Amino acid sequence: MTRYRVYHDTKALFHLPDGVIYLDGNSLGALPLGVAERVGRVITTEWGNELIRAWNTAGWYAQPRHVGDRIARLIGAEAGSVMVGDTLSLKVYQALAAALDMNARKVVLSDTGNFPTDLYMAEGLIATLGRGHQLRLVAPEAIEAALSEEIAVLYITEVDYRTGRRHDMSKLTAKAHALGIVTVWDLAHSAGALPVDLSGCGADFAAGCTYKYINAGPGSPAFLYVASRHADTARAALSGWMGHEKPFAFELGYAAAGGVERMRVGTPPVLAMAALEASLDIWDRVDIAEVRARSLALGDLLIAEVERRCPSLKLVTPRAHAHRGSQVSFAFEGGYAAMQALIARGVIGDFRAPDIMRFGITPLYIGESEIIRAAEIIEEVIAGEVWRRPEYQVVNEVT
Amino acid sequence: MTRYRVYHDTKALFHLPDGVIYLDGNSLGALPLGVAERVGRVITTEWGNELIRAWNTAGWYAQPRHVGDRIARLIGAEAGSVMVGDTLSLKVYQALAAALDMNARKVVLSDTGNFPTDLYMAEGLIATLGRGHQLRLVAPEAIEAALSEEIAVLYITEVDYRTGRRHDMSKLTAKAHALGIVTVWDLAHSAGALPVDLSGCGADFAAGCTYKYINAGPGSPAFLYVASRHADTARAALSGWMGHEKPFAFELGYAAAGGVERMRVGTPPVLAMAALEASLDIWDRVDIAEVRARSLALGDLLIAEVERRCPSLKLVTPRAHAHRGSQVSFAFEGGYAAMQALIARGVIGDFRAPDIMRFGITPLYIGESEIIRAAEIIEEVIAGEVWRRPEYQVVNEVT
Repeated sequence: MTRYRVYHDTKALFHLPDGVIYLDGNSLGALPLGVAERVGRVITTEWGNELIRAWNTAGWYAQPRHVGDRIARLIGAEAGSVMVGDTLSLKVYQALAAALDMNARKVVLSDTGNFPTDLYMAEGLIATLGRGHQLRLVAPEAIEAALSEEIAVLYITEVDYRTGRRHDMSKLTAKAHALGIVTVWDLAHSAGALPVDLSGCGADFAAGCTYKYINAGPGSPAFLYVASRHADTARAALSGWMGHEKPFAFELGYAAAGGVERMRVGTPPVLAMAALEASLDIWDRVDIAEVRARSLALGDLLIAEVERRCPSLKLVTPRAHAHRGSQVSFAFEGGYAAMQALIARGVIGDFRAPDIMRFGITPLYIGESEIIRAAEIIEEVIAGEVWRRPEYQVVNEVT
Repeated sequence: MTRYRVYHDTKALFHLPDGVIYLDGNSLGALPLGVAERVGRVITTEWGNELIRAWNTAGWYAQPRHVGDRIARLIGAEAGSVMVGDTLSLKVYQALAAALDMNARKVVLSDTGNFPTDLYMAEGLIATLGRGHQLRLVAPEAIEAALSEEIAVLYITEVDYRTGRRHDMSKLTAKAHALGIVTVWDLAHSAGALPVDLSGCGADFAAGCTYKYINAGPGSPAFLYVASRHADTARAALSGWMGHEKPFAFELGYAAAGGVERMRVGTPPVLAMAALEASLDIWDRVDIAEVRARSLALGDLLIAEVERRCPSLKLVTPRAHAHRGSQVSFAFEGGYAAMQALIARGVIGDFRAPDIMRFGITPLYIGESEIIRAAEIIEEVIAGEVWRRPEYQVVNEVT
């Protein structure tokens, strides 16, 4: 299988609308051209013609595990340790429930930069457990110092969704383990964005989504990693029939399947899986280290161009390569309006309250020319005060 | 909007492969012809061109509630009381967690005819709760007598997945409420199969799937009903960001949205939602009472034809119309092999351990001629002893 050169070969594999510079692939990745054909084939040939038989003949049943193995390559996971399905909210819930079961301590440590749904799901789990667990939030930079023998689980997102700041997974995992702490990593802004080495870091659990950098489409399924050493003993709190050791025996009592298979819950979303497979057809032929190198260079370029042109935008993403993911964020008081004005001019990033303008760097389909052109338009909107126009002050329901 | 006549107008709206008589729509519904175009449009136009903006411009964000309202019509639910998403396993989990929170009692009552995943999810929830709850299973016919003031939640499936026996929702709900019991109904084999009157029965919670009678495709999303009187107070145990009162404020603490909106969890599966919308384009124009009348007539016909031709098949579905759903099941010791032989001859039903041959009746695309032809082939396989051939004894991984 010939390897694709990032951008040079890969840009043509995506549909990018005319007049748009898309810097929001960290929220919803662009459409790989192979998706429509693949999903259409699954609908027409597999569902339409094979009907129920397709669970066997088209491999639908085994797909969550096979697709998991394709994702495993991107995140440094052992083969057979990643299961695809459901949403990221549910996958971090499963991971946290299993992790808390491995440890008699009561404190879940997270940070204020974690994505809110992770925190909300933890709140819900703690209430259901009803055993006096506590969710402790500290600032991201205080996480390392907050690790102690009081902590049951370290429960954080590697790359901050707002600032793009990146935690040191290797160092934090090692320190956590030395203190008897189980780790749960959210890879929402890592998978497909930068090399992750779950096995090398000795991570216990991790979860991520596939609709951002992996480009599998809106609401595409999430994934869950369980380290092989835990997979046969981890408790499946969401113990659905697909995670049963014999789903088609229809027994009355639950018995968990061996390995990460137990983290399957219900019937897998076959159409969404088809889109994910088409997106992975690109990823299978890309070197994630090359993606990372280009991402850092493009991020440096965006930072330099914007800082030179727009001194009122304050960089909130760390400059140091080791400490950032694959996005560049600026704080700006008129950030919401400015982003509306940018979108109206074809530069699509997004806004995160209270004042963060985010620009995702996705080297598969973004290169230097797009970054330079985006910086020119950002200059027009900010330095030219276009963002102050009344039409950009109206707040939409969702952004 | 002109109403469709069932079968006469609707059969042509489905893709049915040549040489197949499909009696497994109770497991995976047939493909509505409108699906491929609709899903293709969402991929190409909405995702491809609108990208992240489609959450607003294409209405993706509000879709789970709008689609829920379309399903509400089929199950007698109030507008605004049904939310679409996730899988049925997760939706019964949410319902049971909320129901147990409304009641200090400790016993969950279900029956041995409930679909196993419902029982497994309850086991997992009870373990997570760790407060001494008990899942009590009785035979389906013993459910009514087992209702008592000891029971917290009645947690059953209206129509038995194996036998097609139907519980009396109105009567059981009334008796349950008289005893202070909260009700959770699984409508997997009810929604799109027969008229359901959740509001009229005073049901508290219900959940169902859309890949069976509703024909929305493999792994299509599930739905959850919460009676309006509970919707602002029901606890959301799976408290994801989409169920937050202000998801895009990205607050650190969870606050449940008003109404059934709180039962949203993560990002909705947009491609699968598109297929569901296309399948509902048919359902919107069908009278479910007409579907039911035809289902019963076709079921009677299948029973009469098979009993006349194959005395060794023992009917396990109740003959009385009021007591059955939309499938006909027979017990037969060689049921697995016989079903393989039938499938090889184009009559697709399915097998459920230990010895049940199931035939789903889906009047939108199955009529009298298909039933008669299926009965002829069943006769050939059973009375002609075709099922004894060695090639039909091999057990596949999944059926």
